[in-house]
Amino acid sequence: MKIIALAGGVGGAKLAHGLAQIILPENLTIIVNTGDDFEHLGLSISPDLDTVCYTLAGLENPLTGWGRLDESWQVFDNVAMLGGPDWFRLGDRDLGTHLERTRRLRNGDSLSQITNDFCKAWGVGHSILPMTDDSLHTIVNTEGQGELSFQEYFVHQGCEPTVTGFRFEGAENALPAPGVIEAIANADAVVFCPSNPWVSIDPILAVAGIKSACKSKPIIAVSPIIGGKALKGPAAKMYLELGIQPSVLAIAEHYQEILSGLVFDQIDAETEPAIKALGLKTFVTDTIMQDAKGRYRLAKDVLDFVNIIF
Amino acid sequence: MKIIALAGGVGGAKLAHGLAQIILPENLTIIVNTGDDFEHLGLSISPDLDTVCYTLAGLENPLTGWGRLDESWQVFDNVAMLGGPDWFRLGDRDLGTHLERTRRLRNGDSLSQITNDFCKAWGVGHSILPMTDDSLHTIVNTEGQGELSFQEYFVHQGCEPTVTGFRFEGAENALPAPGVIEAIANADAVVFCPSNPWVSIDPILAVAGIKSACKSKPIIAVSPIIGGKALKGPAAKMYLELGIQPSVLAIAEHYQEILSGLVFDQIDAETEPAIKALGLKTFVTDTIMQDAKGRYRLAKDVLDFVNIIF
Repeated sequence: MKIIALAGGVGGAKLAHGLAQIILPENLTIIVNTGDDFEHLGLSISPDLDTVCYTLAGLENPLTGWGRLDESWQVFDNVAMLGGPDWFRLGDRDLGTHLERTRRLRNGDSLSQITNDFCKAWGVGHSILPMTDDSLHTIVNTEGQGELSFQEYFVHQGCEPTVTGFRFEGAENALPAPGVIEAIANADAVVFCPSNPWVSIDPILAVAGIKSACKSKPIIAVSPIIGGKALKGPAAKMYLELGIQPSVLAIAEHYQEILSGLVFDQIDAETEPAIKALGLKTFVTDTIMQDAKGRYRLAKDVLDFVNIIF
Repeated sequence: MKIIALAGGVGGAKLAHGLAQIILPENLTIIVNTGDDFEHLGLSISPDLDTVCYTLAGLENPLTGWGRLDESWQVFDNVAMLGGPDWFRLGDRDLGTHLERTRRLRNGDSLSQITNDFCKAWGVGHSILPMTDDSLHTIVNTEGQGELSFQEYFVHQGCEPTVTGFRFEGAENALPAPGVIEAIANADAVVFCPSNPWVSIDPILAVAGIKSACKSKPIIAVSPIIGGKALKGPAAKMYLELGIQPSVLAIAEHYQEILSGLVFDQIDAETEPAIKALGLKTFVTDTIMQDAKGRYRLAKDVLDFVNIIF
């Protein structure tokens, strides 16, 4: 069975890692959000791509949810000492990734080529593709401050501003990265990892052709909302500010147009009838991935669900 | 007595440090070669400026002659692991300097402003000025390979190519950095530190107005050639390849047009009559600076010499 996983950062990376423990490299393609990509100190940073790659390579920092394991901070300690901006600190090992990626992008290599080469160097066998090699920037519309770039909202302002909407700048011209549409066309099912629907999965679906390619396949989402909350990140806060009660039902309705089935946590079991009433298949399980075993277990549940319903 | 020191990298930085141990901040200005400045991995690197600043701050790496003390190498170990170019490796602490300088240059700040701010952060009280805020690139003309950028010649090719000449690209448009001409005009004497005449001092003198400003002052050079050799770097090799025997006499003749006096090593004492015959004052001493005491001692000799002859 060939599977496509759409993923953002930490939650998505964890499930992608679980899937990669079960599915052979040739049968799994992970398509990653690049709407958060930005330039900082002249470096091209791809937070979600790096989180997914580092996680599959076993190099991720389990404490922060971003950056590298056993990281050191010499560079940014010295930037700060010189009075430079340190609201977005990059670890020394992690910085090597950004430096080399930036050099290659300037040389004309594409983000997907570079990601492929980096994955080889890190010993990652599964395909990790950026959603696009073009620029597509997630813009957060806020009360009071108007439009903010994603990292300004997310890191600099710590998700404080009240969200009124989102816009994907450049979506009209962004083409799927090479291999994305082919991989989806060859897949048996598409899995939306438990990533933020607004700013992780929606940007991927905003790239021309990706949503329609996915639509022709069974799509399973894993809810990032558990008991009305997000384990990490501002998803629940965003739903609230947009006037929607954050819940498994809200996730189901978010994707309703294209979704076949929803995996959600046992804590939300009572919502099952409402989800079924939307015409969706359901799978209730423990969706919290505490460790590598938890990732494997949830990935296995997702694949069992795909097998059962199709 | 107000002194101007013209300096390149290691040798120049050592004497500048010695002078700074004796002369009050308001009476010493160090003008540094930026002809070696280059961009690497998108970062603006100023090797001589950093060597002089780090040396005066006590942050320099005494083993390598460049970069920082107690350096770590996480970033470039990771760049190399990803297949990136590692012929010019930058240490983690050092990299913080380049990142923040590059960010500020892109923001429109000048190299001299940035250097001034960095010196404050590092606790350097003496004025260190880049020769220019404009771009002036030292180009090395070589046999077989034609023109090479300085770092290509110096680091990448390890000074292997045979030199046929030099060119200072941009010299026709480069203006002295703010304060350079004023500092020279207010000085009692100019000291050419024991730096490479071809690629450290000559680029400084190539900036419009600097040579003529210096000419109106007594100029003392400290020979970087000791017993026919350079302690560090390709100065002796360059003289040989240009058909000139590397010697104290060659240094005297190099600067003859503008020089008042030459300080050189006791090992070359027998050359003294030939130097005097050129109409120059002479001061023979131990010019090797083994440690901080050696820097102080040579600086004191240079200042005594200035006092004696003027």
